[in-house]
Amino acid sequence: IPEINTQEHHAMTFATAFVSDAQYNRNIPFKTSPEAVRLYRLYNHWMMRTATYFFIFLNLSLALFEEPAVYPLPFLATSVLEVLCLLVFLGRLTHFAKVTLHNVFWKDTKNICIMVAILLSLTDLAVYGVLRLYGVGSIRWSRIVRPVFLINFAESRQIRRAFRSIRNTLPEITYVFLLFTFSLLMFSLMALKLFGERNLQTAEGLPYFRNYLEIVFDLYVLVTTANSPDVMMPAFDFSSWYALFFIAFVIINTYIFMSLFLAVVYNNYKKHLKNEIRKLAYMKRRKMVEAFNLLKEEEGEQFVVREARWKQLVKLVAPDTSSSHRELLLRISDDEQKGFVDKKSFVQLADLLNIQVVTLRIRRHPLARWAPALYGSTPSRLLRRAVRHRAFVWTYDAIILINAIFIALDEESPYISYAEWVFLALYIIEILLKVYTYEPREFFGKTQFWNWFDTLIIIAALTATILNATLKSTMKYNSQQILDIVFILRVLRLIRIVDSIQRFQVIMNTLINIVPTMLTFGGLTLVVYCVFAIIGMELFHGKIQYFPANSNVPHALECGNPALKDSLFARGRYCKNNFNDFASSFIVLMELTVVNQWHDILGMWIQPAKLYFIAFHIVMVIIIVNIFVSFILEAFFVEYSLEKSEVETAIEQKIQELGMGVQEDELQQEQLLDNMESAEHELEGDGGTKPQSKGLVFKIASKRYRTVDALLQRMFEAEIPLEDEGPSFEEILNLSPSSAVPRSLSSESAA
Amino acid sequence: IPEINTQEHHAMTFATAFVSDAQYNRNIPFKTSPEAVRLYRLYNHWMMRTATYFFIFLNLSLALFEEPAVYPLPFLATSVLEVLCLLVFLGRLTHFAKVTLHNVFWKDTKNICIMVAILLSLTDLAVYGVLRLYGVGSIRWSRIVRPVFLINFAESRQIRRAFRSIRNTLPEITYVFLLFTFSLLMFSLMALKLFGERNLQTAEGLPYFRNYLEIVFDLYVLVTTANSPDVMMPAFDFSSWYALFFIAFVIINTYIFMSLFLAVVYNNYKKHLKNEIRKLAYMKRRKMVEAFNLLKEEEGEQFVVREARWKQLVKLVAPDTSSSHRELLLRISDDEQKGFVDKKSFVQLADLLNIQVVTLRIRRHPLARWAPALYGSTPSRLLRRAVRHRAFVWTYDAIILINAIFIALDEESPYISYAEWVFLALYIIEILLKVYTYEPREFFGKTQFWNWFDTLIIIAALTATILNATLKSTMKYNSQQILDIVFILRVLRLIRIVDSIQRFQVIMNTLINIVPTMLTFGGLTLVVYCVFAIIGMELFHGKIQYFPANSNVPHALECGNPALKDSLFARGRYCKNNFNDFASSFIVLMELTVVNQWHDILGMWIQPAKLYFIAFHIVMVIIIVNIFVSFILEAFFVEYSLEKSEVETAIEQKIQELGMGVQEDELQQEQLLDNMESAEHELEGDGGTKPQSKGLVFKIASKRYRTVDALLQRMFEAEIPLEDEGPSFEEILNLSPSSAVPRSLSSESAA
Repeated sequence: IPEINTQEHHAMTFATAFVSDAQYNRNIPFKTSPEAVRLYRLYNHWMMRTATYFFIFLNLSLALFEEPAVYPLPFLATSVLEVLCLLVFLGRLTHFAKVTLHNVFWKDTKNICIMVAILLSLTDLAVYGVLRLYGVGSIRWSRIVRPVFLINFAESRQIRRAFRSIRNTLPEITYVFLLFTFSLLMFSLMALKLFGERNLQTAEGLPYFRNYLEIVFDLYVLVTTANSPDVMMPAFDFSSWYALFFIAFVIINTYIFMSLFLAVVYNNYKKHLKNEIRKLAYMKRRKMVEAFNLLKEEEGEQFVVREARWKQLVKLVAPDTSSSHRELLLRISDDEQKGFVDKKSFVQLADLLNIQVVTLRIRRHPLARWAPALYGSTPSRLLRRAVRHRAFVWTYDAIILINAIFIALDEESPYISYAEWVFLALYIIEILLKVYTYEPREFFGKTQFWNWFDTLIIIAALTATILNATLKSTMKYNSQQILDIVFILRVLRLIRIVDSIQRFQVIMNTLINIVPTMLTFGGLTLVVYCVFAIIGMELFHGKIQYFPANSNVPHALECGNPALKDSLFARGRYCKNNFNDFASSFIVLMELTVVNQWHDILGMWIQPAKLYFIAFHIVMVIIIVNIFVSFILEAFFVEYSLEKSEVETAIEQKIQELGMGVQEDELQQEQLLDNMESAEHELEGDGGTKPQSKGLVFKIASKRYRTVDALLQRMFEAEIPLEDEGPSFEEILNLSPSSAVPRSLSSESAA
Repeated sequence: IPEINTQEHHAMTFATAFVSDAQYNRNIPFKTSPEAVRLYRLYNHWMMRTATYFFIFLNLSLALFEEPAVYPLPFLATSVLEVLCLLVFLGRLTHFAKVTLHNVFWKDTKNICIMVAILLSLTDLAVYGVLRLYGVGSIRWSRIVRPVFLINFAESRQIRRAFRSIRNTLPEITYVFLLFTFSLLMFSLMALKLFGERNLQTAEGLPYFRNYLEIVFDLYVLVTTANSPDVMMPAFDFSSWYALFFIAFVIINTYIFMSLFLAVVYNNYKKHLKNEIRKLAYMKRRKMVEAFNLLKEEEGEQFVVREARWKQLVKLVAPDTSSSHRELLLRISDDEQKGFVDKKSFVQLADLLNIQVVTLRIRRHPLARWAPALYGSTPSRLLRRAVRHRAFVWTYDAIILINAIFIALDEESPYISYAEWVFLALYIIEILLKVYTYEPREFFGKTQFWNWFDTLIIIAALTATILNATLKSTMKYNSQQILDIVFILRVLRLIRIVDSIQRFQVIMNTLINIVPTMLTFGGLTLVVYCVFAIIGMELFHGKIQYFPANSNVPHALECGNPALKDSLFARGRYCKNNFNDFASSFIVLMELTVVNQWHDILGMWIQPAKLYFIAFHIVMVIIIVNIFVSFILEAFFVEYSLEKSEVETAIEQKIQELGMGVQEDELQQEQLLDNMESAEHELEGDGGTKPQSKGLVFKIASKRYRTVDALLQRMFEAEIPLEDEGPSFEEILNLSPSSAVPRSLSSESAA
């Protein structure tokens, strides 16, 4: 019966692929040949993904080494590296093509984008190289194509989603923007009529509001508030009533229109996010149904998956789960122990696998095993009790406060640098005591953010301080870099005090939850910055030079550019804000994002600077910063509504019903540890028979460390009834934000 | 039967009061004696309300005439005016006390506030007057109490709601603010450690980041982005890596924390708004039920209100409705013409009265009545058809565009000033043609915003232009004020072109809907500005003087203050930004609200200025501007969801069902007018018999001109089932945002 076995094997392979896709929320419609599935699993291997990211960032960071370079490398080196990156991208794309269905692959714009980008980069590189050989200078314009790889590789779904969200927002933004432009033009016209013939002068003695285009630009700057009182002062000095013009302008354009931009972006972001989450949830359900259909067997009147197959599947999908963990999963899926899993329970498997199971195997402290007499002695017990006491926490909060005062005091006095050693010792003692009291693997659990934070900070501070002391005593030399790091670490230690105040925790939760998605915005910003930095370097490279304060170079104070004499730019000593290399460009763009003084920073004597800035302002401030704000608003609201009402998926409820769950929030950490201790005592009494099976308990991952996406998805999944299979793959892919809830769902909820 | 009649009369009086309260959304628990109800109606009379507002604003504007004055008045005059205002307030409060129940009156904090404020103002005035007589100078500190009257009088419910919303937000804001402060202090400590011992200097040559408190302040300024690159430059010049410190600071504090403030404020605003709206909706329902209970009679198995009583009630509540209008209302309430109105229909009366009934009595044009032959002649008909044609609108759009170009061109050329007369003539002809074509009362209907806008602008421009021309020819003198107004009016004319583009209308709707509630924010801002202006004048009065540019006074360029020599303040010619009088203070506060350059404007050499500004920044920018943004966000979302799904109250549906409604949006204006014309033709054929009753049609007020409040209330009312009476008065007043939907409602929806 080898043929049946092969078939069985194939079914299992596909089912495994489907389930692990569902588990990790991937949705590549892979080919249905065993070979393709194997390739597909390789494609999704974490090493392949990491390598892809590495080459994407290598490719982006080439700008640091190419002319104009922060760290110059010969052209040959950078071009070899670039070709290498492009080859890797091509390889990855080919791999992807082998995995996916042909028609899907060629319909997907992101694949086309990657191919075009590779082609463009290679062409440009070749042309530039040849021209360089003949001594003809040209522009490496294809460098602005590089962020395309970051956007379009399947791994960066979050960034692509953000870009899709921007694309969907564009039409609406455009209408608001046109109206805003109209308002700007109207106000400028009024300003020209009102102030144009008054012969007024600005504080710098330049003519004030004479030229229409300059007025439009000045008022655009006023919308960003960057030239706020200055642009008003000449008119205000002339007559106080003219202030009304500027007040009306600011209210309408800065306050109302900018809020309207936020409203439009936020509204679209929310709409789009919900649609994406809905797609993901349905896709997951559909994949699980497909897997079920592959493995199902008839049992009485229904189709089911038998226990043996189910176990084999779990073993294939999650090879590193323990057998007791698998037993528990099975018990949840087949709670009546009938020897099979029905469809309804089967589709939950992906979520079940995603539940972090911290096997609270009621571990005994290693010392209790290695030196039970010592660890169980009265002084040791008293010590452990003391460490668990609230007063211990308070004592260390007080120590942190005293430390803060010492840090603020003058560093010169030798007593204070001795005190620093004392504090460092105290913190180390704290960590050692805690590790002595609590089970180490528990103490350094995945969700113990603050324990990790503390320990890393202290170890880093210890290392740096010792390093510095060694350098000082041996070479009589204070390394400034190390000292700086020591300073920062010392101050960072103080942050911990926030976590001991209960009321700050909701806000801290929001902030911690934001971090993963912040990376998406980091990516988004990186893309925009890269493009603008490369354009900026081409346009403004070398126009401004930076010389140290004591330089003798002529025009050092005017940044090497006589045209800047007496300008606000030179007066503010902004010379280092230039586009001379990639790193400086990034910092200038950061300053432009913050908006203030941008008209000075950009040196308005360079003509294209105005258009460059307006483009940057529209893209970065009006769109991306607003998406960022929308994201924080949404994260806060989700966190807030989660605080109010518990969102639990069906599985979590089931685990709770079975009495197998310990939800971390229900038990405060101390209680949990106390429980563990009391269990430990029992075990000691029992003599330690079968502690494993008794102590294994599902611990549902802490609410504190979830991303907004995951939260929203849980909310939405809680709304889909368990029986619902969801729409077909094709329907899911075509879901639009405006389309109603799909037929099957609405009919379910109507029933 | 006089006793019964009196009882009947009383019942009718109370019912009238209840219904008109419900209609105007008032909720004063008035005494239930006929005398009190009469007083109560007087209290609610529009003249009384207007008078109260007048005295509130008179009281506030006294600051313009008191020392330091914009327009000085003798002390006696201002104090007599103030006493007069206070007496009026006292009278109003006494009136209110006579109307409301005693225990309610004395429990209400706003009444206590008013009494305390009156007492404080009188005491302060007396003390100041006596001291003044003896030549001792003192401070009129009670002036900061004056905004209390604006907040606490029953008429300014919107402002009070905004203040309540702020009060409810405070605890949560405080936690975020503490965390933000903690972050600020931590970063400052790091900055002190990193940069304090480097001997760096700012661009002005001052020591950089040496003193902890100054660092905290500088970094607070950086959060507002006002000193954005300047504060970074010395450290950045020293080492490029230090830019990372400032980037981290800006991301965490400016972007994340400021967004978090917005999130907290917006979340509370939404929660609070919903609760208020819910209260209002329930209160309305409850009042209507009370009125019904007063008038009900038994009819078969149910209680009803008979037709005669119902009509009498409507006549009392809305005395100026026509009898045909009343008939229509009755027909909607009693659609089966049974001669009585049941409870379910009765409770809708308040909403029914609120529906704007534009009696589309298919009026004939006055000229058609006065000169039918001429008006009906072929050229006249052709002309009217031409005006109704789309091409007419397009022609005038083109004219507006050409006019815009002419305005932008140089004014000096005589041809262009002739062109101005041509354009003016063209616009006047347009209005005349429209009035000739459309029925004038229809053309100037309440909801015809753009017609009113056009006509007023044109008439004003005509008047001003003629006035200017007269002045010029008779006195050879161009009045600058009049010319300015003419310029502004000319440009404003161009705005109309926006309304002819369909896609801008959603945005324009939001903007127009925002206007009424903008007044609330105007009030809120006025209160905060008044308080800060008065404090500012006491603290900073006279420290800075403004001299015209060509003044010979010593230190004219340093604003009369030698300490300001070479400061950014003097260099930016900011001398007119001072606290020397009420009007200047307002403009400075406006500049501080916009935030940019505030550290310069406030002249940091005055020590209390730092604290003053930080207080102002927290109150105005962190709280009030965020509430304003929340408000615009909410307005946009409501408008957006209204565009998507029609929110109709039960009554509107009923009117539609009866086929008596013409909803303005269904018919474009042109179609509507075309309809009217065709009806007109019919009438002409008919010979004009009984045009009134036939043509009377409910026109539901345009969706375009509704406030956000009204929209939200409609949304919520659509959710309350018609049978639901809502909770009792006391329950309604104690509704809290966190409490669930009241029992009665939830049980209804469960059923």
